[in-house]
Amino acid sequence: MTTQRQWLINGQPRGRAVTEDDFLLHEAELAPLASGEARVRVQILSFDPSQKGQMENVGYAAATGIGQVMTARGIGEVVESRCESLKVGNKVIGQLGWQEFATVSPTSASVVPDDELLTARLGPLGGTGLTAYFGLLRNGHPEPGDMLVVSGAAGATGSVVGQIGKMMGCTVVGIAGGQDKCAWLTDDLGFDAAIDYRGESVKARLKQLCPQGVNVFFDNVGGTILNDVLARIALHARVVICGGISRYQADVLPPGPANYMNLVFMRATMSGFLMTDYAAESPQALERLTAWVREGRIRYREDMQEGFERIPATLLRLFSGENFGKQLLRL
Amino acid sequence: MTTQRQWLINGQPRGRAVTEDDFLLHEAELAPLASGEARVRVQILSFDPSQKGQMENVGYAAATGIGQVMTARGIGEVVESRCESLKVGNKVIGQLGWQEFATVSPTSASVVPDDELLTARLGPLGGTGLTAYFGLLRNGHPEPGDMLVVSGAAGATGSVVGQIGKMMGCTVVGIAGGQDKCAWLTDDLGFDAAIDYRGESVKARLKQLCPQGVNVFFDNVGGTILNDVLARIALHARVVICGGISRYQADVLPPGPANYMNLVFMRATMSGFLMTDYAAESPQALERLTAWVREGRIRYREDMQEGFERIPATLLRLFSGENFGKQLLRL
Repeated sequence: MTTQRQWLINGQPRGRAVTEDDFLLHEAELAPLASGEARVRVQILSFDPSQKGQMENVGYAAATGIGQVMTARGIGEVVESRCESLKVGNKVIGQLGWQEFATVSPTSASVVPDDELLTARLGPLGGTGLTAYFGLLRNGHPEPGDMLVVSGAAGATGSVVGQIGKMMGCTVVGIAGGQDKCAWLTDDLGFDAAIDYRGESVKARLKQLCPQGVNVFFDNVGGTILNDVLARIALHARVVICGGISRYQADVLPPGPANYMNLVFMRATMSGFLMTDYAAESPQALERLTAWVREGRIRYREDMQEGFERIPATLLRLFSGENFGKQLLRL
Repeated sequence: MTTQRQWLINGQPRGRAVTEDDFLLHEAELAPLASGEARVRVQILSFDPSQKGQMENVGYAAATGIGQVMTARGIGEVVESRCESLKVGNKVIGQLGWQEFATVSPTSASVVPDDELLTARLGPLGGTGLTAYFGLLRNGHPEPGDMLVVSGAAGATGSVVGQIGKMMGCTVVGIAGGQDKCAWLTDDLGFDAAIDYRGESVKARLKQLCPQGVNVFFDNVGGTILNDVLARIALHARVVICGGISRYQADVLPPGPANYMNLVFMRATMSGFLMTDYAAESPQALERLTAWVREGRIRYREDMQEGFERIPATLLRLFSGENFGKQLLRL
């Protein structure tokens, strides 16, 4: 074993959709380890919409360039080590990238227990869980009795947002694409209602489900869904912008929500956040999220794809909405 | 004197521009006064963009209907009275309407001193001053050293916002239409810079004037100006939506700001407010504003038109940007 396969970035999808052609399959030599490094066999990769932003080299994510291995968080096993704290056989989590083997150090990867929550650390007990937690609590300021609406509700972030909202005594309405996702929200996660934006009029259903207006809206989608919810916000509503998945693959920057002036009439707030701003509080948040997952108060679903060759196609599932739950892939 | 002239609402300009045809000149009998009422000769009328919203019967303003006298705040003199607290000869301020004589009571009009600040009570010492005060302080949260950008900066609200910002140690950039307005902002009001959106590229000038980004944006305009400023907001910026004058005369609801996702990257907030929410604190705010005006720390400018027959045309000046300072009309 002296070589490995990698997926390199082959294009910068700025102002256009990312496609499989933006990645190039590459065979690389395995370099010898330096002191303090370990070699990790990549086992599971995590997929996130922000990865497209990284490839564009705009926005908040760390820049990546053409010809580099595509970055991605993942879980793997140490197979060779010149580092005391990373032992052969250890499971690690970190920025492993789209490749069969990653060279890591204790600053780029952490050892995690090989237990039943292993993959949850890429989802509800990882960045998506923290995004849900801090976005909802620190920006949404939900109160018992509030009407909380979540878009992208069956996604990794949205599903946690809705469940925390239920724990806090909110009435929770999820917006998702497809009847199976909607059924999961109401039957398994305890959402009060779900709107299938593919089969129903979001506008009409919101009117029916939220007669007093929407107090908190957690938006992962943007586009007409954001605009339709803005039309129904309640006095002093908090609109939390987490993402805009409907916009990311557009060739031309889509317009913003025409109904933004409703923020004035309703004395409401629309705000953005990044979970990285809450690093100091993340250990406490993860402790709470872990307890809630163990107690079954937060449930999650993984969409596990298979095979190294399917990595680029798996990223695209996020933008078409094909993924059902946290998108992962087992190499 | 048994009759008077009035301007009645003759159309609901919803989804289209308001025009002079939306008003109908009418001759009405002067009704006898009931006990507790007084008759006021209307002397000065105040004009505000929200008056179009009132005519549309949407949004926050009190509904008005076709055939009613157009509502408006104004100043007048009591000419006949059956009310102890409203004496003949008193100057009063209140909802007088587009008519030569208004019938008022102590709940709809207040006696004001007939001093040099009389008309200022329709501007910097009235609703527009309070809008500037509470919008900037309670929603913009300006800090010394902040870059504060104001659109509609030569207007009644924007000019007060910028001057309060200067008092607080902000660097203040105003956006206004025309070189004369821009010169007034920098030469008379002490703004650090002004951008003439009619003659300059707002985008290019913002880049030049705000290299560290915009900490507080107070928006009266919307449209491309809002979008261009959103592209340059600083970390944790506060975008205060006060109005959207560029949108009010559109036949189709214009799109929102495409750059709203920058709220996420910059962890920023966009919020709306109405000054009526701060009624409890308005007396204190008016005391402060009055002191600042008397001390010359807040200067204002009035655009005084003349003549009853020119009332409808004067309202339209707000939407074309012809007004320079607080729009008033002397009957």
